[in-house]
Amino acid sequence: MDKSQINIGVIGFGTVGAGTVKILSNSSREIEQRLGFPVVIKRIADLDIKSDRGVSLEKGVLTSDVDVILNDPEIDIVVELIGGIRPAKDMVLKALRNGKHVVTANKALLAEAGKEIFRVAVKNKKQVGFEAAVAGSIPIIKVVRESLIGNRINSIYGIINGTANYILTKMTEEGVEFASVLKEAQDLGYAEADPTFDIEGVDSAHKLTILASLAFGIPLSFKKVYTEGISSITPLDIQFAADFGYSIKLLAIAKRVENELELRVNPAMVPKDDLISGVNGVFNAIRIDGDATGDALYYGRGAGDIPTGSAVVSDIADIARLIKSGAAERMTMPGMAEDNGLQIRKMEDIVTCYYLRLSVMDKPGVLSLISGILGTHNISISSMIQKGRRREKAVTLVMMTHVAREKDMTEALKKITRMSFVSGRPVMLRVEGGEI
Amino acid sequence: MDKSQINIGVIGFGTVGAGTVKILSNSSREIEQRLGFPVVIKRIADLDIKSDRGVSLEKGVLTSDVDVILNDPEIDIVVELIGGIRPAKDMVLKALRNGKHVVTANKALLAEAGKEIFRVAVKNKKQVGFEAAVAGSIPIIKVVRESLIGNRINSIYGIINGTANYILTKMTEEGVEFASVLKEAQDLGYAEADPTFDIEGVDSAHKLTILASLAFGIPLSFKKVYTEGISSITPLDIQFAADFGYSIKLLAIAKRVENELELRVNPAMVPKDDLISGVNGVFNAIRIDGDATGDALYYGRGAGDIPTGSAVVSDIADIARLIKSGAAERMTMPGMAEDNGLQIRKMEDIVTCYYLRLSVMDKPGVLSLISGILGTHNISISSMIQKGRRREKAVTLVMMTHVAREKDMTEALKKITRMSFVSGRPVMLRVEGGEI
Repeated sequence: MDKSQINIGVIGFGTVGAGTVKILSNSSREIEQRLGFPVVIKRIADLDIKSDRGVSLEKGVLTSDVDVILNDPEIDIVVELIGGIRPAKDMVLKALRNGKHVVTANKALLAEAGKEIFRVAVKNKKQVGFEAAVAGSIPIIKVVRESLIGNRINSIYGIINGTANYILTKMTEEGVEFASVLKEAQDLGYAEADPTFDIEGVDSAHKLTILASLAFGIPLSFKKVYTEGISSITPLDIQFAADFGYSIKLLAIAKRVENELELRVNPAMVPKDDLISGVNGVFNAIRIDGDATGDALYYGRGAGDIPTGSAVVSDIADIARLIKSGAAERMTMPGMAEDNGLQIRKMEDIVTCYYLRLSVMDKPGVLSLISGILGTHNISISSMIQKGRRREKAVTLVMMTHVAREKDMTEALKKITRMSFVSGRPVMLRVEGGEI
Repeated sequence: MDKSQINIGVIGFGTVGAGTVKILSNSSREIEQRLGFPVVIKRIADLDIKSDRGVSLEKGVLTSDVDVILNDPEIDIVVELIGGIRPAKDMVLKALRNGKHVVTANKALLAEAGKEIFRVAVKNKKQVGFEAAVAGSIPIIKVVRESLIGNRINSIYGIINGTANYILTKMTEEGVEFASVLKEAQDLGYAEADPTFDIEGVDSAHKLTILASLAFGIPLSFKKVYTEGISSITPLDIQFAADFGYSIKLLAIAKRVENELELRVNPAMVPKDDLISGVNGVFNAIRIDGDATGDALYYGRGAGDIPTGSAVVSDIADIARLIKSGAAERMTMPGMAEDNGLQIRKMEDIVTCYYLRLSVMDKPGVLSLISGILGTHNISISSMIQKGRRREKAVTLVMMTHVAREKDMTEALKKITRMSFVSGRPVMLRVEGGEI
């Protein structure tokens, strides 16, 4: 293959599409210098070919017919940036079958239909780049697949949804309720009209599915990810967390424990001496412990048109280099997951420390009864705060436990909730992280 | 090229050599799974072939004759891990001329003789991998060359010498003098018998030379790096820094300012809201600001046998993939520096905030005279602390300035030093970093 340039077709001219096109246009000279050849945007397809995206394009580049891209024999790389599963999946599969390499930022697509996509890619000897699908500008896919190739990875955890982190940060800084921060974030365009994926942890679970597959050599296991969001977090719990020396963060967690893999997304209490606890606003951060590297942390912008576009462009450049050197069809994608038999740990079997908040009647003997129930389930309290003193009225009891098994905690909480002196549902948060 | 395996020869069986061999041996199965083919250590050369390194090798692998490796036609990749410029340079050049790709962790060699090495590599169509030369297990070379390819980099700065950071951390935590911490570090094996390169900033300057060349497209410019070490830092200054809200860190800094590039290694006051200020012990951390990604931070182990070995192995794997796919001789190394005309800013032209510590006679009018001298050089004070009150005796005066030009500061300090009421030499530290 000796082409003078690499031609790309972009499907989806929304936020990330426009960011990608801006970088490729504005930095075309630098990219050509670094690669040794030009990357040319031959076509961009979108249903909306009227709106101004702040980039000037040559005439005829924009099309509303995606098949113009998928059937163009001169296009080497198709960049899929429309998101969602349908119709993105059909377009990606058609591109691969038509002999095109694919770059995508579509985490939902890969988490839920990646198996088929990678199978078709391998069969057609095509590359699929997806750096932009996880943690935006943080090159975590490349790090896991290439830089850590000599490592057995023990754990990966971090903040991989900027919207949720923005909301938690605002709640922490301003002491306001979840609902009002969400509304503000929606008004500012930081959260979508339907924010479910971001705030209920689904988006984090999609990304964790991809990361865990690469890092631990397991199949894509989206349905096995335990997923809990942040909509029930209150400013009160954030304040208590701070009193105990923690921040509350929505974490995606994958870690080896006794020949099984914990795989979960949940709001967690992160101690202040863990750098993750200080990651605020829309930023993402991922902490990886490899057996050779030890602890490492990667921090950067996880979303946004230009940061995510930067990751898309790095994938385009990697594949373009392979095409130019004749290796794109000979090199299998590095580190794609084979099933190595590692089992996903059942949620009831995980062992961690817990934060509990209860509303209880302030009267003698209550604490003894609660700690008694916890004790019979092998749960011991490491510290405790009772807020206020209101004899025979409801007061707030907050406690941190030593390590306990989730199953024990669930059963103990069931019993505690049934006690007459307990009102409302107890709040339970898991603790994660530590000194770095 | 269709080889069933990739053969490597390792030159230098010291700390990093042994770490690399351990990873390749212990993780050979995982690496083969991920690559799709095995990487085999065919030969290891070292002058000492007797000492036990804690790895079991097949008979005949060890040799004291480096030419056995350099002349072996079956060896695909030569891994140079002896360090220093001679004889490493001759070995690397011979390996390239004999048709072998090279992986090296040798920052001094690349910073000082990289131009010749890369020229010979390109001429012989060979790859040179050097991820392990900068920041150990942090994959900063790959990030700069591949992940940030769509970015114009505005600045890179960070802690890239673990020994110096270990010493500063110990001084900070225990309030002890530089000399005694250095001695302890030497006893523990964290600092070398001749610690000059680490504590005087030379090692950081070597690494910065390589990073800046890749990030800013300038030639390797080791001789142009302004280099200042940490041997004159005192616990007193560390304490004052903390009082003002800063940590003192040995930073390597490369940043664009008005069409020039600042390129320097110096101890710096880093504000507490910059994650870099919290990086302690032997850890490294690098902060990069790209025009597309915005701020990002990479944190991890910058030295040690296994972490550095992990980076060596990632280079071996990258090159092995290229060899297997037939691209190793067709793909030019990404992003090697061309001279783009960017000039290195003279040190006297840099503009920054400063920390000053003076020993002055405690009498009326002294502060006015000092601030007067500073003022005539366009330097204004942002905050000031006088420690203690001892009329007509020497007291310590500590101040932070607003931004000022280095040339003005140098001249003002000359005048201040000459004043009769000033004793000893003033201490001056530059401020770097900010909220992330």
